[in-house]
Amino acid sequence: MKLYVIKIGGNVIDNSARLHQFLKDFAELEGLKILVHGGGKVATQISSSLGIEAKLVDGRRITDIETLRVVTMVYAGLINKNMVAQLQRYGNNAIGLTGADGNFIRAKKRPVKTIDYGFVGDLDENSIQAESIGKLLDASFTPVFCALTHDGDGQLLNTNADTIASALAVALAEIYETTLIYCFEKKGVLQDIDDEGSLIREIGPQRYETLKLEKIVSEGMLPKLDNAFAAIKSGVKEVIIGQADELHYLNTNATFGTMLRS
Amino acid sequence: MKLYVIKIGGNVIDNSARLHQFLKDFAELEGLKILVHGGGKVATQISSSLGIEAKLVDGRRITDIETLRVVTMVYAGLINKNMVAQLQRYGNNAIGLTGADGNFIRAKKRPVKTIDYGFVGDLDENSIQAESIGKLLDASFTPVFCALTHDGDGQLLNTNADTIASALAVALAEIYETTLIYCFEKKGVLQDIDDEGSLIREIGPQRYETLKLEKIVSEGMLPKLDNAFAAIKSGVKEVIIGQADELHYLNTNATFGTMLRS
Repeated sequence: MKLYVIKIGGNVIDNSARLHQFLKDFAELEGLKILVHGGGKVATQISSSLGIEAKLVDGRRITDIETLRVVTMVYAGLINKNMVAQLQRYGNNAIGLTGADGNFIRAKKRPVKTIDYGFVGDLDENSIQAESIGKLLDASFTPVFCALTHDGDGQLLNTNADTIASALAVALAEIYETTLIYCFEKKGVLQDIDDEGSLIREIGPQRYETLKLEKIVSEGMLPKLDNAFAAIKSGVKEVIIGQADELHYLNTNATFGTMLRS
Repeated sequence: MKLYVIKIGGNVIDNSARLHQFLKDFAELEGLKILVHGGGKVATQISSSLGIEAKLVDGRRITDIETLRVVTMVYAGLINKNMVAQLQRYGNNAIGLTGADGNFIRAKKRPVKTIDYGFVGDLDENSIQAESIGKLLDASFTPVFCALTHDGDGQLLNTNADTIASALAVALAEIYETTLIYCFEKKGVLQDIDDEGSLIREIGPQRYETLKLEKIVSEGMLPKLDNAFAAIKSGVKEVIIGQADELHYLNTNATFGTMLRS
């Protein structure tokens, strides 16, 4: 059976009209699906209203205990539950989750080397309880994950949403024919980053190597593509990198964005 | 099959040691179970830190849009997900929910008569999707509900946790042999409110009428007991009103608190 694992980032969440349209399109998407969402500006706004300053060490964001509290409130509460209520409005039987719920995603607190990242969780190949998530899918629920996991010892952990999405896609590929979709603000991988018309429709591993050698892929896109090809190597059928506004094309069997295949 | 629907209030949530012990006892409780929790002081603290004043009309608390946002963050995020993480630590496969998740509890926004209560939801006999909740129980998940529901049209609604617990117990009584348990700070219904030794072990409908006539039941306890007997009339097998600290007695087949039966 086919399964979509779809990730949306902060720029979709921050734009109320865009988010609304995306959720409508997501609800209408046929078949099994999982949504993974990141944070957005509201967490920063709430932190600032509460007088909590962003902690940065060497330019890296640190999740101290105060930040974790805000992130838990905003990601798992405000953003996640309002998304679920909207999806229900559009007839999608969504159920909002962290990795602690159902023990679905168990992470390890990032070890302190040169930087102590605080309450940040890293995933490994045993993190995802795929069969347990499958029970929800089988019961016709649509899991909506925010970017929080737990360590199994009572501690919630802030975890990168891109990583959660690819780990879910890989683990569930053992049960379903899985497509991983990263939705962001651009049309996909662009030949020229300033020209939305220069979309590259499809990239295989060989083309990817060429693109890297020719330095056509932007530095921000590199880790996304590396993750994507790693996911494909680990059993994910295909990865799409595209624009949230174009998700609806999937229902017409049209493609959108950049398709990555083995 | 037996099912416990257990509600804890703010005074348990506000006391970290007591909450911790309660969650451990709850996790160890054998059989199917559902937890329903209220808010606690942290919502008021966060509201105040964010500069949101409590809105009261004629002494009644109003849920305006700002308050709803805080309640969504605190109930569904901070409190609910930390409880779930603790329950998972103790081996209970908890899954944290609002009524929007899975469309499990659909409410109607309270109509404006003399007071506009704001985003407050009222339940009716069709509010609970018992079969759908049964799917989670059948899959060995333990639902943990916070005091939020939705209207099915995208709007989250603040809803009394006592009411949610009794509505769940009544609706699920069609599938399970249901016991409803209200955990609060006292040992149960007391003959003398200042004497914890004066616990009334059991109350039937007739005794209840006598207690009301003799004005032995305190005014604060009256709505709880009215709700309890209404739940029993609607198919709930028994209702226990007791102290959170004594929940563990259930595992030894001992009783605790005040048992209400038809």
